[in-house]
Formats: sequence, structure tokens, C-alpha cells
Amino acid sequence: MADVTFRSAQAADLPAIIALLADDPLGQQREDAGSPPNPRYVEAFRAIDADPNQLQVVATLDGEVIGTLQLTFIPGLARKGAWRGQIEGVRIAAAHRGSGLGQRMFEWAIAQCRARGCSLVQLTTDKERPDAHRFYERLGLVGSHIGYKLAL
Amino acid sequence: MADVTFRSAQAADLPAIIALLADDPLGQQREDAGSPPNPRYVEAFRAIDADPNQLQVVATLDGEVIGTLQLTFIPGLARKGAWRGQIEGVRIAAAHRGSGLGQRMFEWAIAQCRARGCSLVQLTTDKERPDAHRFYERLGLVGSHIGYKLAL
Repeated sequence: MADVTFRSAQAADLPAIIALLADDPLGQQREDAGSPPNPRYVEAFRAIDADPNQLQVVATLDGEVIGTLQLTFIPGLARKGAWRGQIEGVRIAAAHRGSGLGQRMFEWAIAQCRARGCSLVQLTTDKERPDAHRFYERLGLVGSHIGYKLAL
Repeated sequence: MADVTFRSAQAADLPAIIALLADDPLGQQREDAGSPPNPRYVEAFRAIDADPNQLQVVATLDGEVIGTLQLTFIPGLARKGAWRGQIEGVRIAAAHRGSGLGQRMFEWAIAQCRARGCSLVQLTTDKERPDAHRFYERLGLVGSHIGYKLAL
């Protein structure tokens, strides 16, 4: 794990990111891992890449993408004008789960949030992901909220 | 309630929005309702106003701000490149709670999310807000997730 690099994703990373999103019990029902990438992913990547408050992060080892998450920096009035760093779409390649990579990727992401002046880091995770809950609690996050969703 | 208007907030609305954020059991510990507005609110409002993916919404009646929420439109790769509409900082003036205003403001906000092509509306609410949980569930939102926070 010593040589893992964390950086902003480039367009060439997109197929590997999609593969990670799809290689997941919930993701395999929701994603399209076909090649070439579904144009909806390409369009979404452009929107993320063009927005200074979005950061698609990849973890790479020997040039291979082995982890990803999306960071969103959100300005807000609440809590005396606090910025929030929000994390979505966290995935670690199957061969690297349990290796400590998730923790290192989170520490890197949280450092980015501090560097951007965020007062709070937040994420939601499906109630059906008990392993994720233990992971976030070990990192010191507090499950103080309920996350509501409405599909449109 | 017939004459309530929903619109994007302007700088002149800021003191009224801060007063709404502070008039709340959790908000009164977190906010600064002093006048003139704490510069941190002014700076946060500028960041929101300058970002096309942020919409600070106010509900007004006879020119008075009686409700607010923040909408954030978030591009993402997950769920085949789905955009999400995220709602934060929902407040209704005490004199107008229970009037149906919250429901109308949410319906307006959800319509904005549809107009922007979002596939999902999401929000988190503190586990200590049981009235809010009932409100969101009546609107059809599903509390399928745990919301984790880390104060920096």
C-alpha cells in the first residue's frame, strides 16, 4: 500500500471508475459496466470536472485505479456560514478491500476538506451496509442523522 | 397561504434567513442572529449566489420571508451519471408552522430538481427531529440511509 497515489480523476480513468461503481451488491443493479462507457457517465464526468466544487478522487497503485470517491464542497448559511465536504460513491477494488486503503483514502479526502476550510464532513450510507457503518465509526464519524431519498 | 411566493434569495433577504436558521432548537446553539449579519454569513451567501448549482430558496408572504431552504444540484457518476438534488437548512417561521407551507415549499423544491434533470432528491435530518421525520415520510421520502457527520 506504500505506493498508492490519490489524485483527481482524469477522463481516461472513467472506465475503471465505472467498473468499481458496478462491482458492488447495490451498484451491480444500478450501473452499466458496458464498453465504451454509457454516454451518461461521460456527460456526468464532464460536469464534475468542470465544477471547482466537485472532486472525483481515484486511488492508484502501479497506474491501476483501485479506489474512488467523489468529494463535493458545499457552501451554506447554516452553522454560521459553514462549508461542508460531502463524500459519495466510495468504492475499493475487491482485491484491495481490508487492506487499509479505504482508511487512507478517507484520511486524504478529509485533509482536502480541511484545506478547503470545511467545518464538517458528511456522507450517507445505506442502512444495508453494516460493514460501512463500522468503517465510518472507526474513523470517528457519528451517525447522528437519517438520510432520506426520493427517486424522481 | 394562497399568496406565498417561492424564489431565489437576494442579499437583502439575508437577515431574515439567518433569523429563521437561529429560531430552532438546534439552530439557536449554532447560529449568530446579531445585526449586522456576521461576515461569515455574508461570505457564504456570496458563494451560494455565485454557484449555478446552489439555490437558496425563500418563501415570502406580503414581502416577508417566512421560510427557507437550500437546494444543491450535484452531478455524480453513480447510478448511471445521476444528478441529485440535495436539500439542507429547511426552516419555516414559527407563526407559519403547521400551515402547509413546508409541504408547498418542498413541492416547489422537488419541481426545481425535476426541471434540472435530477434522478434523486436527498436530505439528512437529525435523529432528534421526530416531527421532521414524519413530515418527510408523508412527502414520500424514504429514510433508507444513515447520515454520518464529522466536525473538523
